[in-house]
Amino acid sequence: MNAEFKRYKDIVEDNIIGCLPEIDHKSEILYDSMKYSLTSGGKRIRSVLLLAAAELCGASFTEAIPYACAVEYIQTYSLIHDDHPCMDNDDYRRGKLTNHKVFGDGMAMLAGDGLLSSAYEVMTKDMLLYLDDPEKLNRRVRAIYELSKGTGVRGMVAGQVADLESEHKDVSPDMLAFIHMNKTAAFIKSSVMAGAYIGGADSDVLRRFSVYGESLGLAFQIIDDIQDVIGTKESRGKDVGGDAEAEKATYPALFGIEKSKEYAQELLDKARNAIDFFKGKAESLFFVIDYLEQQIKD
Amino acid sequence: MNAEFKRYKDIVEDNIIGCLPEIDHKSEILYDSMKYSLTSGGKRIRSVLLLAAAELCGASFTEAIPYACAVEYIQTYSLIHDDHPCMDNDDYRRGKLTNHKVFGDGMAMLAGDGLLSSAYEVMTKDMLLYLDDPEKLNRRVRAIYELSKGTGVRGMVAGQVADLESEHKDVSPDMLAFIHMNKTAAFIKSSVMAGAYIGGADSDVLRRFSVYGESLGLAFQIIDDIQDVIGTKESRGKDVGGDAEAEKATYPALFGIEKSKEYAQELLDKARNAIDFFKGKAESLFFVIDYLEQQIKD
Repeated sequence: MNAEFKRYKDIVEDNIIGCLPEIDHKSEILYDSMKYSLTSGGKRIRSVLLLAAAELCGASFTEAIPYACAVEYIQTYSLIHDDHPCMDNDDYRRGKLTNHKVFGDGMAMLAGDGLLSSAYEVMTKDMLLYLDDPEKLNRRVRAIYELSKGTGVRGMVAGQVADLESEHKDVSPDMLAFIHMNKTAAFIKSSVMAGAYIGGADSDVLRRFSVYGESLGLAFQIIDDIQDVIGTKESRGKDVGGDAEAEKATYPALFGIEKSKEYAQELLDKARNAIDFFKGKAESLFFVIDYLEQQIKD
Repeated sequence: MNAEFKRYKDIVEDNIIGCLPEIDHKSEILYDSMKYSLTSGGKRIRSVLLLAAAELCGASFTEAIPYACAVEYIQTYSLIHDDHPCMDNDDYRRGKLTNHKVFGDGMAMLAGDGLLSSAYEVMTKDMLLYLDDPEKLNRRVRAIYELSKGTGVRGMVAGQVADLESEHKDVSPDMLAFIHMNKTAAFIKSSVMAGAYIGGADSDVLRRFSVYGESLGLAFQIIDDIQDVIGTKESRGKDVGGDAEAEKATYPALFGIEKSKEYAQELLDKARNAIDFFKGKAESLFFVIDYLEQQIKD
């Protein structure tokens, strides 16, 4: 792992539990359930991108920590709900039992609800620190709005719905693009953009990050779908072949592995071009591209 | 219904769908599912309290509409998830089939997730309008923080967890108080407080509203539990006796109906005293007390 990426990832790991709102011991099982999934070994790509973008644009990384943690709370909530019996009904995630297998279906739903609520609680609590600094407060308002769009009914939730609705159906390339853009790319893009806003990025930088985040996010989903076909349970930390079983709409299913790899490479090139401007300064941002590229070159 | 209450309720009904983020037609089923539950005839108590508090404290009610709608999105998400098969598994709510009975278990979970996300998206989008007005922006930051606390892991979600954990168990009066305070009172209180913040209330008024909201919220839950014992399916719009069946922790179960009515009355008196100050000006706030009182006097 690239040293800068590791530094940011360590910052996230060091703060992800401590940043949670303090929970009364009478609902400690909620805390246990949320903590279980928060510490199940994610790659932390979204939060690292947020921290890297924030620091690159001029914020101290400590300023961006609540938002980086919030992004992981949202990501973790979405995984818990996605794994739930009423959705994908997965038993394993990252090599560990899924939340509902350990805490039960009801608690898993509430842990997800609690994490999503905590994301906004942590971000708005941070904003209270900037009531006397309108410039920095405004940046945070924009960052939260960006994240709410990327993960809500015009973003991730919309993508999940379209994905669920498309199972066992013929899906047009147009619908597939909609699913990928919303289910995955919107959140990754909004994480980068949120970091950029917190750092006070100008409109040119915001535009570059928008292209970078979207291209990277689309490539991320296509490569994830490719790995579901060619990967092993060990390399993936979860069952593979689930997409084909559920007849999910994916690029490999529609276009085959080779075409999917080509398209992913094009998107990674586009992401790389968008941030070429920062060469030598934003190693983490380039590292994520390299990391994804490796998976289609093996 | 009191005329002022009706005026506020009509404002909520007129805006609750239009305030939603615009949804792409490719995920229209999400919109249908959210809309189904949003228009299933709730009493809108929380949003009316928010509008009334905001206007009483000096905001125009139009300023408070996004927050009133957000409160109903949060309330509706919590009901959809609460009715879900992995939680209470209820078939009816307000006389209509519950969301998952109509749209399926997966879509119901996503509709709840979408509504919670929309609440924050709508509130932060509104904040973008006040980037040049730090005073009004600050009030909104406080309002959102209050709502996030009241409905998150130190509020409603914590109460839901404790409630779920207490089924089929002996529950102490202390734990029962925790459940009621968090499951119901915290959100009602934070709705009133959010309105007060938006209206620019001073610390004395905030203190009064805090006592009013908390007392009213506790009374609300106790009276709801009483009605689950003495009400009919027709009067309730849903199955009754469910609490006893699930051996839920309630005041009637622990202390009997009469003692529960007495305690509810005490709380309503406390709520009334707290806002006595506003007599002649805040009819809706008094009306909600009267409305609840009626249900323990019949």
